Amino acid sequence: MQAHGSSGSRAINFCLVGAGFIGPVHAANVTAHPRARLRWVVDLNAEAARRVATKHGAQSATSADAALADAAVDAVIICTPPRTHAPLIAAAARAGKAVFCEKPVDLDMKPVMDCAKILAATRTPFFVGFNRRFDPNHRALFDAMGNGEIGRPEMLILSSRDPEIAPPDYIATMSHAIFYDTMIHDFDMARWLLQDEPVEIFARTARMLDAKDNPHRTPDTAMVILRMARGALVHVNASFRAAYGYDQRIEAFGEKGMIVSRNPQPTTLERYGADGIRQDRLLHFFVDRYADSYVRELDAFVQALERGTVPSIGIEDGRRALMIAEAAMRSAESGAPIRLAPGPPQPSD
Amino acid sequence: MQAHGSSGSRAINFCLVGAGFIGPVHAANVTAHPRARLRWVVDLNAEAARRVATKHGAQSATSADAALADAAVDAVIICTPPRTHAPLIAAAARAGKAVFCEKPVDLDMKPVMDCAKILAATRTPFFVGFNRRFDPNHRALFDAMGNGEIGRPEMLILSSRDPEIAPPDYIATMSHAIFYDTMIHDFDMARWLLQDEPVEIFARTARMLDAKDNPHRTPDTAMVILRMARGALVHVNASFRAAYGYDQRIEAFGEKGMIVSRNPQPTTLERYGADGIRQDRLLHFFVDRYADSYVRELDAFVQALERGTVPSIGIEDGRRALMIAEAAMRSAESGAPIRLAPGPPQPSD
Amino acid sequence: MQAHGSSGSRAINFCLVGAGFIGPVHAANVTAHPRARLRWVVDLNAEAARRVATKHGAQSATSADAALADAAVDAVIICTPPRTHAPLIAAAARAGKAVFCEKPVDLDMKPVMDCAKILAATRTPFFVGFNRRFDPNHRALFDAMGNGEIGRPEMLILSSRDPEIAPPDYIATMSHAIFYDTMIHDFDMARWLLQDEPVEIFARTARMLDAKDNPHRTPDTAMVILRMARGALVHVNASFRAAYGYDQRIEAFGEKGMIVSRNPQPTTLERYGADGIRQDRLLHFFVDRYADSYVRELDAFVQALERGTVPSIGIEDGRRALMIAEAAMRSAESGAPIRLAPGPPQPSD
Amino acid sequence: MQAHGSSGSRAINFCLVGAGFIGPVHAANVTAHPRARLRWVVDLNAEAARRVATKHGAQSATSADAALADAAVDAVIICTPPRTHAPLIAAAARAGKAVFCEKPVDLDMKPVMDCAKILAATRTPFFVGFNRRFDPNHRALFDAMGNGEIGRPEMLILSSRDPEIAPPDYIATMSHAIFYDTMIHDFDMARWLLQDEPVEIFARTARMLDAKDNPHRTPDTAMVILRMARGALVHVNASFRAAYGYDQRIEAFGEKGMIVSRNPQPTTLERYGADGIRQDRLLHFFVDRYADSYVRELDAFVQALERGTVPSIGIEDGRRALMIAEAAMRSAESGAPIRLAPGPPQPSD
Repeated sequence: MQAHGSSGSRAINFCLVGAGFIGPVHAANVTAHPRARLRWVVDLNAEAARRVATKHGAQSATSADAALADAAVDAVIICTPPRTHAPLIAAAARAGKAVFCEKPVDLDMKPVMDCAKILAATRTPFFVGFNRRFDPNHRALFDAMGNGEIGRPEMLILSSRDPEIAPPDYIATMSHAIFYDTMIHDFDMARWLLQDEPVEIFARTARMLDAKDNPHRTPDTAMVILRMARGALVHVNASFRAAYGYDQRIEAFGEKGMIVSRNPQPTTLERYGADGIRQDRLLHFFVDRYADSYVRELDAFVQALERGTVPSIGIEDGRRALMIAEAAMRSAESGAPIRLAPGPPQPSD
Repeated sequence: MQAHGSSGSRAINFCLVGAGFIGPVHAANVTAHPRARLRWVVDLNAEAARRVATKHGAQSATSADAALADAAVDAVIICTPPRTHAPLIAAAARAGKAVFCEKPVDLDMKPVMDCAKILAATRTPFFVGFNRRFDPNHRALFDAMGNGEIGRPEMLILSSRDPEIAPPDYIATMSHAIFYDTMIHDFDMARWLLQDEPVEIFARTARMLDAKDNPHRTPDTAMVILRMARGALVHVNASFRAAYGYDQRIEAFGEKGMIVSRNPQPTTLERYGADGIRQDRLLHFFVDRYADSYVRELDAFVQALERGTVPSIGIEDGRRALMIAEAAMRSAESGAPIRLAPGPPQPSD
Repeated sequence: MQAHGSSGSRAINFCLVGAGFIGPVHAANVTAHPRARLRWVVDLNAEAARRVATKHGAQSATSADAALADAAVDAVIICTPPRTHAPLIAAAARAGKAVFCEKPVDLDMKPVMDCAKILAATRTPFFVGFNRRFDPNHRALFDAMGNGEIGRPEMLILSSRDPEIAPPDYIATMSHAIFYDTMIHDFDMARWLLQDEPVEIFARTARMLDAKDNPHRTPDTAMVILRMARGALVHVNASFRAAYGYDQRIEAFGEKGMIVSRNPQPTTLERYGADGIRQDRLLHFFVDRYADSYVRELDAFVQALERGTVPSIGIEDGRRALMIAEAAMRSAESGAPIRLAPGPPQPSD
Repeated sequence: MQAHGSSGSRAINFCLVGAGFIGPVHAANVTAHPRARLRWVVDLNAEAARRVATKHGAQSATSADAALADAAVDAVIICTPPRTHAPLIAAAARAGKAVFCEKPVDLDMKPVMDCAKILAATRTPFFVGFNRRFDPNHRALFDAMGNGEIGRPEMLILSSRDPEIAPPDYIATMSHAIFYDTMIHDFDMARWLLQDEPVEIFARTARMLDAKDNPHRTPDTAMVILRMARGALVHVNASFRAAYGYDQRIEAFGEKGMIVSRNPQPTTLERYGADGIRQDRLLHFFVDRYADSYVRELDAFVQALERGTVPSIGIEDGRRALMIAEAAMRSAESGAPIRLAPGPPQPSD
């Protein structure tokens, strides 16, 4: 895409990097999008890359080089492990490709800051996949808050519970996946829903799973309190074993009332029997729950490219969420609350 | 009570006739009422009468004669089998006692009409125990309809399901207990909620229980459609085996919307587990569900006596509900809809 | 499609007849289906046909002749007004095209019987668009009943309420649209869910809308009781003005309990304010509520064609639903219940 | 009561000290209890004392001296402002009366420790009014946890929101009423539900109400995280302005699932209208929500006296809840988490 935003009527051509868990979801959404096309699938695992590529009529490769050199490629979707994101972002930006990057942008601040500079210098359209912002229920909550339905927000409570722990190989890449991988979504939601920045965080973790399920003994249970610059208090709780499915609720409380974004359910059935009234367990996990959100976030990215507008979730959103996750980890480890600067990063950063 | 309505500050003295199933409930409510006192308990079963009387510091007898001759007795609560109601009503009225009678007033129209004449001649305060009118939820529905919340009512749907069939001895006293004993409540509710009279009824029954549970082969399942004088349509369905407890719901639909009176639940607990979300089964039966209603209907009766006002549910309400039950039975038996006169009974009746 | 069921890997080519209200929905679903393609759009209104055709890269015409003569066309979707269905079915069948027909198949029994003969003679794959069978919630209810979760079914209650009356031009084509156009779905659901046939129907209607909204004075409110061959009782209620949106609920009651298929809601939000707890109104109408069902029924049809199997809802289903609607109308007009033969149509039909 | 636990069949005679807000509730419950009688009502405000006393046939006084000297008095209910509790407890204990004391026992640890000594020395039956333990829903949650329904508890989330701030005169008696008066209930619930003690607390407060509603600028919004000795994490949030009523929910999450004790609702009505589905706002405040709990806690106290057993909530429960409230205040003021000794108080305390 020679000039971002001037793509005219032809489809946006994508290169997907990372054919693992969430990669195929993005691949399918690109193919289903009326104005997007999957051109490359890249993965170190040649067989995985080929499988996804074949399904969608794309080419496959074990390195992104050829795809980035392909002038027909407009945009890159990065869904490899977090520590590989920064070099891919840099390479894509230098190759003139727009970037859609899964969260977290990285696990350390330095690479994120470096990316920010490169993206700015190359004027690369960049989008972080905080998909929950595109969930219809959470979005309706955001809109209702924006319409002043609860007046000044006073408390925000986010429940963020996974039905199972991520695979050991993935967990092992992070010291505190519960903050960097899971709650990072909630940190972003707090910033977005309240349109405010945290000034302090206190975090506590626990290890509730046994060694069989959690061989790396990573914290699997956590609670956090955030204090926001404009005064609202935020609570987040997370777990890696919600026996009843993926539990994602948001409760926004303000001077005029409360709005709750509840879990959707697989079906509407209510079963009345001798032992009570039963409804379905929750949807199993994020791919089920946020299927719509993945479609919508891709569409938001495509539209931004088509219109030449700045994607709605940028590198600064990625940086701030990571900064909060990092502070959560330090608080959990030190046992003390951590102050967070609400303003922009200092020049010396 | 020499002059109804002039009882001043002393308690209303009650004689309870019928110490069976619902009798003890009324006895306890009389005792708990701050301005009522239980003086007599009458039952053919001397032991049953004595047991209830002793518990509440009352006298017991196997005939109502002594109690009706007791000048201190102000009012009689009749909760014997339906066919014994009419003679007891007549005797009480002639003895100058106010009467609280369980539904149905009788199983035939003739004795009810006779009672009406005696009650009118003796100016006896009379009340029929259509307890559902005093349920707080149904009452709130009534009030909301009265406030015009749904505008003109167009459809009313009543679900009226018992968790089990009544004892064979009781069932055997009636040809169609499902109409005379169960739906008679719903027929009263339809009249009361819509403030209107039915002009036609169509009824269908089924026998779903096997001979062990339903030895008399009485209809145990029924559906009815009523057409009301002002045009609204009413559906009632009933069953004698709701496996999940006592199911009593009302759905009022009108030009501006719908209001539903749902089942209350024993607790508010929601249990989330691997097999779904579970809530309590429903309250077991009418004594559990309508405990409040029994207290409130007694209080309404006591207040009417104290103030000398006409009790809110009179013999005409009892007569009309019976008339509808009788028509339901005839429709179910003949397979044809039955017309009902919306106006008052003719003199020749 | 030369030989039904032998289409191999190429897409099924469709001709859509009727570009009105539901036509564009089918057109979009055909286009979105990975193995279907829209080739023709036919409508008397040339402009409407052209608009839909252009959007999906199809040809347009004001008559079906050219499309039926097009050897590349495999199947026809008929969504014109009911009285035009039969001749189109016949023409399509004679042209060797499979047929997907919107309900009702016709408004009279004779043309339906004639269609049945032609379809049989030509061995044409035929499908009636009873889309509710494909609603995920109703389907889950069907599956649960099939698994014996409520044991023997005893009562079925269907609420079927539209938010508004159909346009006068459409309503005018039928004497009782509330039976032929709306409840016909419920009649099909009763047959399907209970896997049983009705032996009797009683129906009552009312006119609740004023002349402005209902200029043709068609019945806009109705209640029905069906008695099924195996004994279950069925109630259906319908309205043309549910102020709160499209209300479609099913309640299946049996010896072991009850299962309810409730309305899905636009969002999961619960708003707590000074005046109570509020949730969204219901989805507005069938296109919103049954969006998924339309996709799924098309896929079921496509799969049947691909596999050469008989489509799951055939002409006999269409005929029986129409027969019940017709009986409902006769009952409502005569005021008497109507008997229905549970068995196959007589030869003299 | 000469010898605690040997009262035989005569009623327990009560002296109520404090005829303010909650006093009349206790007075009515004593009168309604079949084996309790209100003999004295004491309040500095002679008129208030007289009004409550007259209503229940008791004597009134402006000092407790005469009542404590009355040999017929068995027990004292203390519901005066918190700082007056300790001297009243001591006086009652010395007079040989059993004590039912509203929470908090005091606002400082020293008087509570002194009371503990006196109570132990005089072997006085003592009960703290943590009424929520007697709420049927919370109790059912407790029972379910005891039955192992969620396995090992991992997280507990308590929402504790008042519809309005307490009167300025009352608020002014405490530095942090949100901890000492409101969350003290939740601190007790956490201990009771988890059968465990906290080892650390972190608290944050905010002032969201304006000066008109909150003239003393006491914190009106608060969030807390507790870490329990056995590892579970607890979150409590509180507010003094829940626009939608008294909001009291508990969410217990464990290895096998989650159980939620939800808010009961005034009625079961669901109102469907053009603007959505509406249910009642919540019950207004604690007297409405916990009416049952007040009755049940009194009964528990009466039964303990009758049977000579130790009341279920003792001075140690009062002390521990106060200790947590005090730590919450210190954490909120210092910004640092506070450690709590899970074991018994040290001798030097």
